[in-house]
Amino acid sequence: MDYAKAALALHAEHHGKITIEGKVTVRTRDDLSTAYTPGVAAPCLEIARNPAEAYTYTSKGNLIAVVTDGSAVLGLGNIGGQAAMPVMEGKSLLFKQFGGVDAVPICLSTQDPEEIIKAVRWLAPTFGGINLEDIASPKCFDIEQRLEQELEIPVFHDDQHGTAIVVLAALINALKIVGKEMERIRVVLNGPGSAGTAVIHMLRAAGVTDIIACDEHGILYSGRPAGLEGHKAGLCTITNREGKTGGLAEALEGADVFIGLSVGGCLKPEMIARMAEDPIVFAMANPVPEIMYDEAIAAGVRVMGTGRSDMPNQINNVLAFPGVFRGALDVRARDIDQGMKLAAAHAIAGLITPEELGPETIIPSLFDERVAPAVAKAVAEAARASGSARL
Amino acid sequence: MDYAKAALALHAEHHGKITIEGKVTVRTRDDLSTAYTPGVAAPCLEIARNPAEAYTYTSKGNLIAVVTDGSAVLGLGNIGGQAAMPVMEGKSLLFKQFGGVDAVPICLSTQDPEEIIKAVRWLAPTFGGINLEDIASPKCFDIEQRLEQELEIPVFHDDQHGTAIVVLAALINALKIVGKEMERIRVVLNGPGSAGTAVIHMLRAAGVTDIIACDEHGILYSGRPAGLEGHKAGLCTITNREGKTGGLAEALEGADVFIGLSVGGCLKPEMIARMAEDPIVFAMANPVPEIMYDEAIAAGVRVMGTGRSDMPNQINNVLAFPGVFRGALDVRARDIDQGMKLAAAHAIAGLITPEELGPETIIPSLFDERVAPAVAKAVAEAARASGSARL
Repeated sequence: MDYAKAALALHAEHHGKITIEGKVTVRTRDDLSTAYTPGVAAPCLEIARNPAEAYTYTSKGNLIAVVTDGSAVLGLGNIGGQAAMPVMEGKSLLFKQFGGVDAVPICLSTQDPEEIIKAVRWLAPTFGGINLEDIASPKCFDIEQRLEQELEIPVFHDDQHGTAIVVLAALINALKIVGKEMERIRVVLNGPGSAGTAVIHMLRAAGVTDIIACDEHGILYSGRPAGLEGHKAGLCTITNREGKTGGLAEALEGADVFIGLSVGGCLKPEMIARMAEDPIVFAMANPVPEIMYDEAIAAGVRVMGTGRSDMPNQINNVLAFPGVFRGALDVRARDIDQGMKLAAAHAIAGLITPEELGPETIIPSLFDERVAPAVAKAVAEAARASGSARL
Repeated sequence: MDYAKAALALHAEHHGKITIEGKVTVRTRDDLSTAYTPGVAAPCLEIARNPAEAYTYTSKGNLIAVVTDGSAVLGLGNIGGQAAMPVMEGKSLLFKQFGGVDAVPICLSTQDPEEIIKAVRWLAPTFGGINLEDIASPKCFDIEQRLEQELEIPVFHDDQHGTAIVVLAALINALKIVGKEMERIRVVLNGPGSAGTAVIHMLRAAGVTDIIACDEHGILYSGRPAGLEGHKAGLCTITNREGKTGGLAEALEGADVFIGLSVGGCLKPEMIARMAEDPIVFAMANPVPEIMYDEAIAAGVRVMGTGRSDMPNQINNVLAFPGVFRGALDVRARDIDQGMKLAAAHAIAGLITPEELGPETIIPSLFDERVAPAVAKAVAEAARASGSARL
């Protein structure tokens, strides 16, 4: 199937993918006087007296914004907010279909971090949550953190945390197959951008202590002369505990897990040969993975995952974001904290029974209807436990 | 019927009034690869190459934002963006039901004019039009004008122009009843706020030359010591050609038409007695009109309209805004210019046949299904004539 051609036809036929519908209809003057003036003044006044009543009387509690500046869209790079709209609408579609969440795409005309923060802050009253999307690293870190601090609603950069949740879910089950423990493995993370950095934080929260990060300049280590600007200097303090130097090949020496969020074809069979026994490889570059599935298996990889739908173990954040927001909105969470993200990962992993578990089955299908409800339930429980929940 | 109680129940039952739905469903991997990655990259690239393709491949062309800062909500005043949400959702509902327009409420947390302008400018790529709503006078004038200049999509402050369109429609037909001409009447406009000011401009565009504006300090005249700040000084140059002074009673001496967008009960029978023969009164203060219907008729008013649904001739901008945006979006208008607004007013007035026309029937019912299509058609034609249309 030619997806590009099919996508152009589909998008042109419907002029986009989302529409706004009323939950009530206005057929009579009484309807109008109830849904609109003069009756509508009553809920307005209730909210003016107590802003939390917006959750009772408006759509806020199930409405999120999917906000982008279009600076890092898919593999397309910086194409701008307007051109990112089809992706944001796709996201809205999936939020609704998989999680029952009403999601409005907001494609910004600015790419300035301070302006993005202001824009989101100013439009926040409408929404019960903010999903940041396809905003480039490293500005995405500061934008998310600032908004999280300033707003009383959850802010979630899906490129970071959606990916991190699903990677952790996949790793939990992969480790069961090879019989290794989170606390004892060495992980090499190639591509510490927005997703890669979140994966590092997530793995640490899950108990992994030995992580080596690599970028286009090789292994990250404190004092490295090139390319240590921004968040990467910080990563040096929480990764590479042995102070290794060198390239990806050196990093992989004795490693148990390779996680790639980098560029297609960069992982070679001879590098895999240097890894520890039963290597696990998640090669998630899109559309061409760091190594192709068959090539990885031939090189001795025991458990292999990619981002692709035509290969086993598709590691795709569709498994995470609808359920994460469903759960957060259900309990009116203040934020989406680390415990909620961990709970989401365990919920996804937990759907694979011991009988189903195998090298080609470490995570559920994107179309497994149990996923979003299971994630939502786990996230809501974690929010209650952490105090993030307000319901 | 207790509308306040009914409204609270309705809003609480549904948690607001709008929802986001997909125009397509994602059931298979092929669906996902077409509506989302990897296929979605194709429409993104088309838009990156030519931003106008957003109208082909996204929902932009039928999607508008209903933007408020909550500074002048109904008769409630400045209750803020959050508390204004029920009104904005009501508007979204009516946009969809009456005009087929997808409308997203955007309730801002800022009331600063410059910040409102920035917010709208930054989120504009998503939308095919901007409906400003319940933003206080006088800042609404500058906000609308600046956004109109800066954006390539229509910007329409409904409180101003929606009201002005329907007032003009009502006046066109009222004048037929009393056999007077637009060019020869004297109009007294009480309450030159956002709506009142737009009515003045609209009447002038329709041929009215003799308009007197009154506010709480009385007749507006150049050099008046009190309350001439902002736009009101400008109004002095286009109204009150005889340089009258005094209060509302003096203004009404010999006037043919009273248009009130002011405060309940301010128009007294003895003032009506000073008007010209066959007085026309549009008393649109809400919920209590400037004079009650029966009292006005008893005082000699020939044609009376109010904003209320329980009295004849309800002058309500629901008659205008759905069709105005439907027409503007249909031809991808660059803006909503004076000609398009005039065309909308004539289209509304034109739906009343000579047989139907009478003192209690000068405008169609809000539920007359011919209204929005007729307005849309007239607006689209006017946009083509003025060059605003891009299709």
